[in-house]
Amino acid sequence: MLSFSSHFSRKLPPKDSASLNEMLASLKKERDGDEVGYYNLPQSSKKILQELSSMDFDRFSQIVIMGIGGSSLGIKAINSILKPITPDAKEMIFFENSDPIAISENISKIDKHKACFFVISKSGSTIETTSIFKTLIKHFSLELDNATNIFAITDDGSYLSKFATFHNIKEFHIPHNVGGRFSVLSAVGVVPLYAAGYDVASILDGAALFVDSFFSGNEKHLLEKANYIYLNSKKENINVIFSYADRLEHFTKWYVQLWGESLGKLDRDGNSVGLTPISLTGAVDQHSFLQLIIQGPKDKSVTFINISDFKNPLEIPDISLHAIEQTDFINKQRFNRLINEQCKATMQSVMESGITTDLITLDEISGENIGAMIMYYELLTSLVGHALNINTYNQPGVELGKEILYKNLGSN
Amino acid sequence: MLSFSSHFSRKLPPKDSASLNEMLASLKKERDGDEVGYYNLPQSSKKILQELSSMDFDRFSQIVIMGIGGSSLGIKAINSILKPITPDAKEMIFFENSDPIAISENISKIDKHKACFFVISKSGSTIETTSIFKTLIKHFSLELDNATNIFAITDDGSYLSKFATFHNIKEFHIPHNVGGRFSVLSAVGVVPLYAAGYDVASILDGAALFVDSFFSGNEKHLLEKANYIYLNSKKENINVIFSYADRLEHFTKWYVQLWGESLGKLDRDGNSVGLTPISLTGAVDQHSFLQLIIQGPKDKSVTFINISDFKNPLEIPDISLHAIEQTDFINKQRFNRLINEQCKATMQSVMESGITTDLITLDEISGENIGAMIMYYELLTSLVGHALNINTYNQPGVELGKEILYKNLGSN
Repeated sequence: MLSFSSHFSRKLPPKDSASLNEMLASLKKERDGDEVGYYNLPQSSKKILQELSSMDFDRFSQIVIMGIGGSSLGIKAINSILKPITPDAKEMIFFENSDPIAISENISKIDKHKACFFVISKSGSTIETTSIFKTLIKHFSLELDNATNIFAITDDGSYLSKFATFHNIKEFHIPHNVGGRFSVLSAVGVVPLYAAGYDVASILDGAALFVDSFFSGNEKHLLEKANYIYLNSKKENINVIFSYADRLEHFTKWYVQLWGESLGKLDRDGNSVGLTPISLTGAVDQHSFLQLIIQGPKDKSVTFINISDFKNPLEIPDISLHAIEQTDFINKQRFNRLINEQCKATMQSVMESGITTDLITLDEISGENIGAMIMYYELLTSLVGHALNINTYNQPGVELGKEILYKNLGSN
Repeated sequence: MLSFSSHFSRKLPPKDSASLNEMLASLKKERDGDEVGYYNLPQSSKKILQELSSMDFDRFSQIVIMGIGGSSLGIKAINSILKPITPDAKEMIFFENSDPIAISENISKIDKHKACFFVISKSGSTIETTSIFKTLIKHFSLELDNATNIFAITDDGSYLSKFATFHNIKEFHIPHNVGGRFSVLSAVGVVPLYAAGYDVASILDGAALFVDSFFSGNEKHLLEKANYIYLNSKKENINVIFSYADRLEHFTKWYVQLWGESLGKLDRDGNSVGLTPISLTGAVDQHSFLQLIIQGPKDKSVTFINISDFKNPLEIPDISLHAIEQTDFINKQRFNRLINEQCKATMQSVMESGITTDLITLDEISGENIGAMIMYYELLTSLVGHALNINTYNQPGVELGKEILYKNLGSN
C-alpha cells in the first residue's frame, strides 16, 4: 500500500476543480484512444504471463539483458527493489553502455550454458545493443538458428523482429503505441523479470489497482500535484526525489529518464519547457546535496520516498563507545527506525525552509507497491505533459547527435 | 595528461585579465593562510605514505570502510576508476547508509580474519558511521584494545580520536583546516587506498602537478571557466557532468557533493545562491537526460569527460545480422572508438543547440589523471565560491535536520 502527503510552499489560485476534472478527462481520452497505450499494459500484459507459464526458464540461472534506456532502466529498478524479498531470483546481468571495460567485465561473469540472453530494442537497431549482441554472439559462439537461449523483445515489424523471424528465435512484441520509457510493464519488463523468478503478476496487479483508482477519481492528490508542478514549472523547475533506501536508486534513475525525456520539450508554441529531475538517496545525500536544497535558490521541489517496514530486524547494539557516548541514545533501536526518522527529520527541515515537499510511503517492499509507484509516476508525467502543452511521448532532440555519429563513423 | 577545451554560449564582457588575476590572487592568499588546507595536501600527504610504507597490510584481503559523505565518496571514486589498471587491488566494502538491508548484505561479504576495518569521521560522532561501527563490533566480536585490524581516521582531538587513544587503536588525522568534501587527498583517501594496494603516490603527484601549474598561472582556462560560471550563475544554474565511462560514475557523485554543498549557500549579503550539479553517464544517458538538455530550458552547462584510450582491445565483430545490416558500418571498430565518437557527436549536438559545453579529456586511466581531476574540481569550486561571495567550506544548512532527528529520537 502507498500513502501520500504533500506540502506546497507557494499559494495556488483558489481550488479550481473544473480544471482538475479537465486534466483527468484529457487522460481518459488518451487512454480510450489509440495513440498512447501504456494505460492498458497492466491488463494486456497478463496474457504474456499466461504464455510464459508454459515455458521452461528453470534451465537457466543467469538472465542476460542487452538493452539501454527504456530497455533496461525499468528492469533494473524492479530487480533491485524486489531482490531482498525474492532471495531465489536469478542473477541478472545488464549490458547497456558501449564502455569496453564494462562489457569485458560483464562477459567474464557469464556461464554460457546457464545463461538466457534477452536482446531488447524497440526500434531493433540501437547501436549499443546490436554491437553488444554481436560481441556476445562471437565470444560465446552462440547458435542463432532455432536458438532456445535467445529471446528478442521489440516492436512488431522492426529490424530485430525480422532478424528473429529469420532465425526462428522466440520474440515478444512491444505495442507500437507504448514508448520505450513507458514500456516497463510491457514484454520489456514482464518477460525477463518472470524468467528471473520474480512475481510479475503482483507488479501488474499493483499497477492495475492504481490506474483504475486514478481513473475512478480516487487519486485527486495526483491531479493536485500535477497542477501545482505545472503552475510553478518556471519557479520550481527542478524536481528532486529523495528516496530513503539504497535499493530505490535504480527506481529513481528510471524516473529521471521518464521525467526528463518526456517533459523537456519545445511546446506547441515553440517555447522550450522542461522540468529537471534529480535522484538522491537518503540518508547518504543528507551529507551531499541537502545543503544546496536548504540554503540555495528556491527552485526545487522535493519528493521523499520511504519504506515503513524493511522487514529487517537489524538493531544498533547496546554498546557504549568510550568518548562517543553521546550517540548512545540510538542504541537498541532498529536501523529501520533510524533511517525512517532521518527521512522524517530531513523532510521537516526542508519544509521549514519554505520548500515544497511531498512524501510517498511504501508500507513494505512488494510487487504491488512497485507496480503502483511505476503507474503513479507515468500518470504524473502524462498529466504535467498535457498541462505544458507538449508531446510527452516523443524525443526529437536526440536525433541530431545520432546523425553526427553516423556521419563521423562513415555510415551511408 | 588532461586536456581541456570549451565553448561558451553567452557573450562575456571583454576579457578582463585584471579580474582573472584577482581570482588567482584570492586563492593564493587562501593557500598561504591557515584557514583552508586542501591546497597543500598533495605535499603533506607524502609523509603519510612514508609512515605507511613500514606497515603491513598484506595480511588483509578486504578493506572495510565505515564512512559517509566526504568520508566515502572520494575513496569510492578512486577505487572505481583505478580498479581496471590495478587488478590485484583488494576488495573494498563500503558501509555508508543506515539502510538495514544494505548493511546486512555488506556484513555477509566480510571475512573477519581477512578484513581491515577503517572508521572514518571528521567529527568523530557521525550517527550512521558510529551505529554501523557498533554493529560490526558486535557481529564480528571485534576486540578493541590494541586492535591491529581497526584504524581510525578523524580530526585530532575529536570524539573518535579520544576513543582510539583510549583503546590504543592506530589513528590518522585529518587536518583541521580541510573540510570533509575536500579531504580525499588527506589520510581519508590516502590510508585506505594504500592499504587496498593502489598507487597513491601517483594520485598525489598528479594533484601536485596540477595545483602547482595552476598557481604558476598556467591553467588560465580554469580561471576563465570559473569566471563564466559565476557571471552566468543565474541563467545557467545547472551544471551537468556527462562522463563517458561507467567507472567515472562515482567520481561524478563526488563532484555532486563538492559542488552542491560548497556553492549552495546564503551569500554574505544574505541572498540564496547556488549551482545545481547533475551527474550523467554517456552513452547511457543519451537515452535518458539528453532530450531535456537539447530542447528544454537553456539553464544548463555541460562538461563532457572522456578517456581517449581505455587500453582495451574489444572490437565489434565483423558479423552481419539479417535485417539489421544497417549497423554493419561499425563492425571491426573498437568499442573504445565507438564510445569516444558518441561523446564527440553528442557534445557537438549540444553545442549546436546553443548550450555551453566544455570537454576534459583523459589520455588514459591513471593515478596522475585522477589526482589532477580532483584538484581541478576543488580549485574550480573555490574560485566560483570566491566570486559568489560565500563561505565555500561550511554547511550550516544541514544542522536543522540533525537537531530535529536528535529531538525526535530522544537525545538530550
